[in-house]
Amino acid sequence: MSHARQMLETNPSGAAVDSAALMECIEACFDCAQACTACADACLAEDDPKSLVRCIRLNLDCTDICEATGKILSRQAAFEPQMVRDALRACAQACRLCGDECQNHAQHGMEHCRICAEACRRCESACNNILSVIGP
Amino acid sequence: MSHARQMLETNPSGAAVDSAALMECIEACFDCAQACTACADACLAEDDPKSLVRCIRLNLDCTDICEATGKILSRQAAFEPQMVRDALRACAQACRLCGDECQNHAQHGMEHCRICAEACRRCESACNNILSVIGP
Amino acid sequence: MSHARQMLETNPSGAAVDSAALMECIEACFDCAQACTACADACLAEDDPKSLVRCIRLNLDCTDICEATGKILSRQAAFEPQMVRDALRACAQACRLCGDECQNHAQHGMEHCRICAEACRRCESACNNILSVIGP
Amino acid sequence: MSHARQMLETNPSGAAVDSAALMECIEACFDCAQACTACADACLAEDDPKSLVRCIRLNLDCTDICEATGKILSRQAAFEPQMVRDALRACAQACRLCGDECQNHAQHGMEHCRICAEACRRCESACNNILSVIGP
Repeated sequence: MSHARQMLETNPSGAAVDSAALMECIEACFDCAQACTACADACLAEDDPKSLVRCIRLNLDCTDICEATGKILSRQAAFEPQMVRDALRACAQACRLCGDECQNHAQHGMEHCRICAEACRRCESACNNILSVIGP
Repeated sequence: MSHARQMLETNPSGAAVDSAALMECIEACFDCAQACTACADACLAEDDPKSLVRCIRLNLDCTDICEATGKILSRQAAFEPQMVRDALRACAQACRLCGDECQNHAQHGMEHCRICAEACRRCESACNNILSVIGP
Repeated sequence: MSHARQMLETNPSGAAVDSAALMECIEACFDCAQACTACADACLAEDDPKSLVRCIRLNLDCTDICEATGKILSRQAAFEPQMVRDALRACAQACRLCGDECQNHAQHGMEHCRICAEACRRCESACNNILSVIGP
Repeated sequence: MSHARQMLETNPSGAAVDSAALMECIEACFDCAQACTACADACLAEDDPKSLVRCIRLNLDCTDICEATGKILSRQAAFEPQMVRDALRACAQACRLCGDECQNHAQHGMEHCRICAEACRRCESACNNILSVIGP
């Protein structure tokens, strides 16, 4: 994302956690929200969306959680570790479940699911990375 | 909400968990998202928003999580307990933190914070109620 | 919604436009966002979601616009008529298109589409009502 | 964004409008939603947030509209020009208003407002570019 890093660098509060890990996670959350929105749509446009109901549902859930988490992480003022921790856990879980489902369909030739699974893996990993920094 | 109950009753999947608890939680999530959006705005409009920065920040975070959780709970197809559980935990946590902060300001005469704290308490309780149904 | 009216009454800015019309529109936006989320899910759970792709897509779009508009209307500080006007127009359009599509499926026995169409009509009407107050 | 282009290229519906313009606008919407979320937070963290109430409010509105528009543009199935057009108009308007306000504060040394204004200008331009393609 073009402006996320500069926004973080100019925030009067400074970065609430390690800024490299934070930047990666903010970008991964917005990227995954977009990919999951697009994957739900691509699944709907397939010949047999009935076989993709679980994938579409998890895509929609994952979009919602990634959006929320990406915005929460974009705020540095009055940082509250308990809020951020539970949001990151929900986001890592959503990305894991959605990534697993997409991976299954990728193995059967669904290219949009393969790419979406990559976005989910990246976001899951970025969330877990910040969780390891801020502690359990 | 006028149509949430009828939408649930006509879903081909049926309610994924106890429908009374689910309805209450869906309504509480959307209500709390609205109340927190309005409370952040009301705090901004006060004479001294600087003293309310933590409240505004938690309001914005709580809005984001409640919106995501309200939408996730509105979906009955391919219900995934692990997804729903972590979203509910994050939502209950957000409502607890935001409700506590608003309660502090309510004791100093901020009426919008008193009402927002009520919406947060209701939503926290509704999330915990479903968590007790679907298990840890 | 339980707390929306009280939140509006305690906002230091007062209601930016006629408060009865504003309350109805805020409630209608959140109600329609929930109904459209639930209708997309119910359509997915039908035997033949392929025949409902346009309905699902418009449901998802309408959710997104109603959520945004409901939050924008919940803010009274520094009211900006040009912002609100274009959001209301987009919301009324989304509700009209989604309501028309749902109405078609309601005529073929889809009860969730009939109820969602009601939520869309209510929201379209509430948006147009405020537009008539704040002018073109 | 890492995966947006690949998601578009693998969508069974193909891009609903010129794919280069569409990609730029999807990326600009998500980037602007993030920048506006971060700018609202940075404004809150300044010494005198009271002087930035209009900026914070427009940041929050612009976030909401950019998120909705970015998701709507990410969907290619059953493309509906009337829906997309009004969303783009609302988004261009929000970016114009928020960009103008941020520009004012940038001239008084607020670096986060200067960067956010850039994100708003980019998004406004990207929305207007698609509007010129799909017609009035």
